[in-house]
Amino acid sequence: MNILILNGPNLNKLGSRNENHYGNLSLEKIEEKILQEYPEDNFTFFQSNLEGELVTQIQLAENNYDGLILNPGGYTHTSVAIKDALEIIKIPKIEVHLSNLSGREKYRQQLITTSSCNGYISGFKEFGYLAAVFLLKKMQH
Amino acid sequence: MNILILNGPNLNKLGSRNENHYGNLSLEKIEEKILQEYPEDNFTFFQSNLEGELVTQIQLAENNYDGLILNPGGYTHTSVAIKDALEIIKIPKIEVHLSNLSGREKYRQQLITTSSCNGYISGFKEFGYLAAVFLLKKMQH
Amino acid sequence: MNILILNGPNLNKLGSRNENHYGNLSLEKIEEKILQEYPEDNFTFFQSNLEGELVTQIQLAENNYDGLILNPGGYTHTSVAIKDALEIIKIPKIEVHLSNLSGREKYRQQLITTSSCNGYISGFKEFGYLAAVFLLKKMQH
Amino acid sequence: MNILILNGPNLNKLGSRNENHYGNLSLEKIEEKILQEYPEDNFTFFQSNLEGELVTQIQLAENNYDGLILNPGGYTHTSVAIKDALEIIKIPKIEVHLSNLSGREKYRQQLITTSSCNGYISGFKEFGYLAAVFLLKKMQH
Amino acid sequence: MNILILNGPNLNKLGSRNENHYGNLSLEKIEEKILQEYPEDNFTFFQSNLEGELVTQIQLAENNYDGLILNPGGYTHTSVAIKDALEIIKIPKIEVHLSNLSGREKYRQQLITTSSCNGYISGFKEFGYLAAVFLLKKMQH
Amino acid sequence: MNILILNGPNLNKLGSRNENHYGNLSLEKIEEKILQEYPEDNFTFFQSNLEGELVTQIQLAENNYDGLILNPGGYTHTSVAIKDALEIIKIPKIEVHLSNLSGREKYRQQLITTSSCNGYISGFKEFGYLAAVFLLKKMQH
Amino acid sequence: MNILILNGPNLNKLGSRNENHYGNLSLEKIEEKILQEYPEDNFTFFQSNLEGELVTQIQLAENNYDGLILNPGGYTHTSVAIKDALEIIKIPKIEVHLSNLSGREKYRQQLITTSSCNGYISGFKEFGYLAAVFLLKKMQH
Amino acid sequence: MNILILNGPNLNKLGSRNENHYGNLSLEKIEEKILQEYPEDNFTFFQSNLEGELVTQIQLAENNYDGLILNPGGYTHTSVAIKDALEIIKIPKIEVHLSNLSGREKYRQQLITTSSCNGYISGFKEFGYLAAVFLLKKMQH
Amino acid sequence: MNILILNGPNLNKLGSRNENHYGNLSLEKIEEKILQEYPEDNFTFFQSNLEGELVTQIQLAENNYDGLILNPGGYTHTSVAIKDALEIIKIPKIEVHLSNLSGREKYRQQLITTSSCNGYISGFKEFGYLAAVFLLKKMQH
Amino acid sequence: MNILILNGPNLNKLGSRNENHYGNLSLEKIEEKILQEYPEDNFTFFQSNLEGELVTQIQLAENNYDGLILNPGGYTHTSVAIKDALEIIKIPKIEVHLSNLSGREKYRQQLITTSSCNGYISGFKEFGYLAAVFLLKKMQH
Amino acid sequence: MNILILNGPNLNKLGSRNENHYGNLSLEKIEEKILQEYPEDNFTFFQSNLEGELVTQIQLAENNYDGLILNPGGYTHTSVAIKDALEIIKIPKIEVHLSNLSGREKYRQQLITTSSCNGYISGFKEFGYLAAVFLLKKMQH
Amino acid sequence: MNILILNGPNLNKLGSRNENHYGNLSLEKIEEKILQEYPEDNFTFFQSNLEGELVTQIQLAENNYDGLILNPGGYTHTSVAIKDALEIIKIPKIEVHLSNLSGREKYRQQLITTSSCNGYISGFKEFGYLAAVFLLKKMQH
Repeated sequence: MNILILNGPNLNKLGSRNENHYGNLSLEKIEEKILQEYPEDNFTFFQSNLEGELVTQIQLAENNYDGLILNPGGYTHTSVAIKDALEIIKIPKIEVHLSNLSGREKYRQQLITTSSCNGYISGFKEFGYLAAVFLLKKMQH
Repeated sequence: MNILILNGPNLNKLGSRNENHYGNLSLEKIEEKILQEYPEDNFTFFQSNLEGELVTQIQLAENNYDGLILNPGGYTHTSVAIKDALEIIKIPKIEVHLSNLSGREKYRQQLITTSSCNGYISGFKEFGYLAAVFLLKKMQH
Repeated sequence: MNILILNGPNLNKLGSRNENHYGNLSLEKIEEKILQEYPEDNFTFFQSNLEGELVTQIQLAENNYDGLILNPGGYTHTSVAIKDALEIIKIPKIEVHLSNLSGREKYRQQLITTSSCNGYISGFKEFGYLAAVFLLKKMQH
Repeated sequence: MNILILNGPNLNKLGSRNENHYGNLSLEKIEEKILQEYPEDNFTFFQSNLEGELVTQIQLAENNYDGLILNPGGYTHTSVAIKDALEIIKIPKIEVHLSNLSGREKYRQQLITTSSCNGYISGFKEFGYLAAVFLLKKMQH
Repeated sequence: MNILILNGPNLNKLGSRNENHYGNLSLEKIEEKILQEYPEDNFTFFQSNLEGELVTQIQLAENNYDGLILNPGGYTHTSVAIKDALEIIKIPKIEVHLSNLSGREKYRQQLITTSSCNGYISGFKEFGYLAAVFLLKKMQH
Repeated sequence: MNILILNGPNLNKLGSRNENHYGNLSLEKIEEKILQEYPEDNFTFFQSNLEGELVTQIQLAENNYDGLILNPGGYTHTSVAIKDALEIIKIPKIEVHLSNLSGREKYRQQLITTSSCNGYISGFKEFGYLAAVFLLKKMQH
Repeated sequence: MNILILNGPNLNKLGSRNENHYGNLSLEKIEEKILQEYPEDNFTFFQSNLEGELVTQIQLAENNYDGLILNPGGYTHTSVAIKDALEIIKIPKIEVHLSNLSGREKYRQQLITTSSCNGYISGFKEFGYLAAVFLLKKMQH
Repeated sequence: MNILILNGPNLNKLGSRNENHYGNLSLEKIEEKILQEYPEDNFTFFQSNLEGELVTQIQLAENNYDGLILNPGGYTHTSVAIKDALEIIKIPKIEVHLSNLSGREKYRQQLITTSSCNGYISGFKEFGYLAAVFLLKKMQH
Repeated sequence: MNILILNGPNLNKLGSRNENHYGNLSLEKIEEKILQEYPEDNFTFFQSNLEGELVTQIQLAENNYDGLILNPGGYTHTSVAIKDALEIIKIPKIEVHLSNLSGREKYRQQLITTSSCNGYISGFKEFGYLAAVFLLKKMQH
Repeated sequence: MNILILNGPNLNKLGSRNENHYGNLSLEKIEEKILQEYPEDNFTFFQSNLEGELVTQIQLAENNYDGLILNPGGYTHTSVAIKDALEIIKIPKIEVHLSNLSGREKYRQQLITTSSCNGYISGFKEFGYLAAVFLLKKMQH
Repeated sequence: MNILILNGPNLNKLGSRNENHYGNLSLEKIEEKILQEYPEDNFTFFQSNLEGELVTQIQLAENNYDGLILNPGGYTHTSVAIKDALEIIKIPKIEVHLSNLSGREKYRQQLITTSSCNGYISGFKEFGYLAAVFLLKKMQH
Repeated sequence: MNILILNGPNLNKLGSRNENHYGNLSLEKIEEKILQEYPEDNFTFFQSNLEGELVTQIQLAENNYDGLILNPGGYTHTSVAIKDALEIIKIPKIEVHLSNLSGREKYRQQLITTSSCNGYISGFKEFGYLAAVFLLKKMQH
């Protein structure tokens, strides 16, 4: 499968964030883990702190990938623009959150972008990305 | 008149969005329609998915245009930054929304940017832009 | 076109209301302006302070007009009865508000009747009626 | 029994409203059904789109009827005036709603008038009126 | 002074309403009391159950009276239309409520019309009208 | 008809509860009244204080009854589980409440289970069950 | 009559506060006006900035006065302690507010103390005190 | 691994519920799929409609299983009792929801039990259970 | 005295719960402490994780005990069914909570069952039960 | 033990307040009862209507008493100042309320000061103070 | 400059409060630091636990000082009385909070008094007072 | 000290914004003032209208500066992304707002980013930046 993995703001700083919530691996380490676990698939990794760049990447995903894995970071809770972009594309879309959002601050429990994905995974730190690929492959059959 | 028409995130994807809300014309087709309807006026079209680029364009509009027509897309509901930029410039400003926001999701009924424009038009799909130009011309007299 | 223009409570007092919000023309003057702008169309004007009379007029509009332009005044924010009447008739319906509601008191931002129209125009004072006719004609094609 | 059946705004348009909510019978057909089902009772039917006329009819009901069946339509959700009128009269009062209000829009779940009746019936379309008469007769014994 | 005293819905039924809240005098008896207390002034009394008729009376008051005393009854809590009418006229306006609204149901504590009067009096049953005239006379000097 | 009548928690204690809300008949007396009123129909009566047992009974109803009459008692206001069970079965379902819920405590006005029934009857004490059977029979034709 | 007039925090600064809300008279001038208007009655005036001192004065009022006129100032909106004190004493109690609270900040529309008085007067500046005495005398008969 | 898979109310009816939300497999079919995917692990399956039975099963899980997969169904949104039970046991706990809760009714977006699990998976129908086992195994290393 | 002590869900796991909130004694140890402190009284202890079983036990308490001490655990915050059961019985009823609820999560501060008891004690861990017996004895005199 | 018993506003008027909520004993009688029940302990009683005096007394308690029993009266619901004072001192602190707050007005269910005590007792009238001493002694061991 | 520094309830206990929020200096030590930092200015220090005394001091400040620095402590969040006093005086007013209020309990984020000052400083412990003097001097020029 | 001063959207337009809130100096003039006041320190100034660019600058600040002064403009009220970036870096961070936010629109009183700084200064126009440097230097010792 060709899979695009998008990460939003501050995910480029994984490894130096609160370990209880985000684990202790850097984003590069997580990407390595994904490649090791799924050697036969093609992955494109993209991280941006800019809401609009994420919107643009999502728009471009439709014709180039079989599935999208997205961690919008802080934009999950506020971005109608990302939500609208997700609604436009028809490939399978999975949202991943490293921490268990249901137990965090109230403003992190408002999920604007999430309902425009097929589903979401929350609370399993780096393993969430692995499970997302696992699910994309299951959904493909 | 010299008129700036700004479009926000995902409006570059008109034509492939929910037709009930947004109609079935692409943004290019809408721009053609505007030029046909008002051949004697000068239009500048600008679309961006980035909130900050819209802020910058609005700031620059003051000395270069006789009027601004703006569809902030998803930023309508969240952007204090765009609102503040609109308050700074003194030329006539009209907000256009393709869908009838009053009948959609609750988070689309919070209008942050709108109150810093002269007025707004919502629900008439592509015709909303034509009516906005019509109104700019009336307001000029 | 045969167009019905309905105005609700206190719109018979335009000209002596807050000029910032409502402009300085009386309702009669606005009606004259409409007739001047669109000499080839037929207009019926009706104003009432009674919620139930507006309900009745809306019900009667279906078979007699090609379009309805409605300014429900204060009933916009409270009248489920007018909303229900609007849902019954199938002709194009446009709501007009003289002031920019998005920037006024909170209770004026609850729009009960509006979502049962095709769209609405808010903030352009008397020009809102002219733009509404403009739009009815565009929608007809 | 002498029974007054009051219907509020837009109920004169039954038959051309959303069939899922309101059934497909006109108000006249429903009145015929009531007369057929209860041939030995006297019924007075009154419909008005005006809130104040309903208030007046309720005030007049006390000395002239053994029971009141009321469908206040859209005024159910907003009318303190009808509520106050209902509290003044002491005859049995039953509110009928054709649709199941508990599953509709939030503003239709605010029941202002209802708590000033003995009880209410919601969701059974035209049968609600028949059950209301059934209940008035049970309550009389 | 020429004073208009407007009473809204259900105030024509005073004397048969909850005595704790409204006292035990009929509206006619209250009007007699006012005339006795202030024999040298001219009073016009008007009661209506219809919101729109109250709007119309308020609009007409401006040129014909020195002051307005208004008890909007149940419309106090819902009527933007009456509020807008009150804002249009410039004569002194006093709102009277027979019961102490601050201690009643929550929906009776939302005061829509009240802030468009000079002030209001609440909780003194029939004496509230007498005090309102007393205040109109004080404000006149 | 084969009709299942389910009663939830504390309805086994009718007769010793607040008479204003619930009347003065025991559940057994009410069941007798139903049998007397409709001697030609088959009724199964079931009462439980356990939410999960009510869920199970509702699931079992589909193939065994022509209609369900349900009074979920206190679970009306909290049970998503009962609501989900009601949505699964396709036979006619009527909710009965002995008291007029619209006039009681705020937490009794949240109706979770109710919108998954065809309709509901509230405020007529024991007569509510009789009217529910009356309506099931009307709906059958 | 023996009347106690209590004034709360900052009312000792009348005359230097916002004139639109509070008028332009000092508290001493208002007290003089009261004495002039009602020369045959006995008045005790007490002002304090301390919530607890107002509680104590209210407690002491019962056996020493025929009526209480109270302006709790800012404590109106927060003081359960003053409210509880008012509920203990049984003499007639009238709350006076110089400004029309219904049109001011939201936190000034929460009236904690007010519902424990017989009624209240709001918006008539210094005349409010005169009307309160007028009402105490009417209520006495 | 020894894994306990608990399912709450109405999950015994999968296959006859709304297919968009829950897929079209029965619970038995899903259990078969899990056994096929993970033949080397031991699974115990338990379903109950009773909140308290789920509490008891969770309490018993601690010493007998290496991980818990839980779908509390409707109790997710209301059960403090299940939440408290989850907090007591220390083995890895994963909550699975077949539908994407973030896009459903508001009362299904309140997640009471979820924050006491390690994480949750929502929206992938039967595949959610497979991914939960996948994650339990990853978390074990 | 004959006293029934009911404990709800998860209280059978005291001793392995958060010690700051619940202390470090098992339920059995607490029961022993009660028997030691009050050797001359008769106690019946009952614990259940099932809401409906608690409802049933409460219903049965009326004729068999002189007082009820109840810790509904997580059902305190959600159970209208337990609340209704408590209202039916007339013996003295005391609610005990081991932790100080006023300082915990918001959903633990909604007390549904509590207002149907005579009073409640919160925050004293195992001593709360001893104080409840102390109070039952005081209330008996 | 040396115990300080602080009572807030209006508790000096016990005996003349609503008997259902507060019982019929004066504060002096309650103090006598405490001395009789616990003759071997030393009690200091202090009552004030002033929030700041209560703050000062709490601050002084730390080095002079073994425990604090506090009934902040109306300040319970509003006083951040008393809450902050309670947090400063480290001796055992028990809040007592004569009435069952969970069943009273909504503003009495906001407990600001309470979470800074060890626990609280509510609803047992004068017996609440006796139980508080009982608990202080238990907590001491 | 002549500067008045007012401190509200519990600030006399600095040094023994939560060090993370309030630092570890006593109020006396902070006052010394201010005197050392600004030896050429005159300072008056006043601390009170009583809301009304703070009101009185603020009222007196106008003619005697060039600037006011105020830390209202817990009254910040509740006192309309202090807010009203601040609005009366026209000298520069700065509010200081030792802790960063934006990150604390919700009730500490409601700032009643603050908007009647020129500005405020929050989160810098004792340095906040020094910065306040720094700002008063800048504002003077 | 090496200090980074970040300014968010529309702060590049200072000097042409509402003078009451923002003062009348341009951003360049403010920067000059800072350099004049603190000639011995090194300052880097950066302004951007893009949320993501501010996130990136904050991330980069950690190893390059001794302190951060940040005015996030409109993003203060919405940006979880900026908040998360602030939490990652450990150098002293001060938020500055030119206007007194506590007295402005409600949506400007929600402070998302602020609680991740050490503290904030609001309402002193350009002087706020000077005080922020003053505080950074005090905090350094």
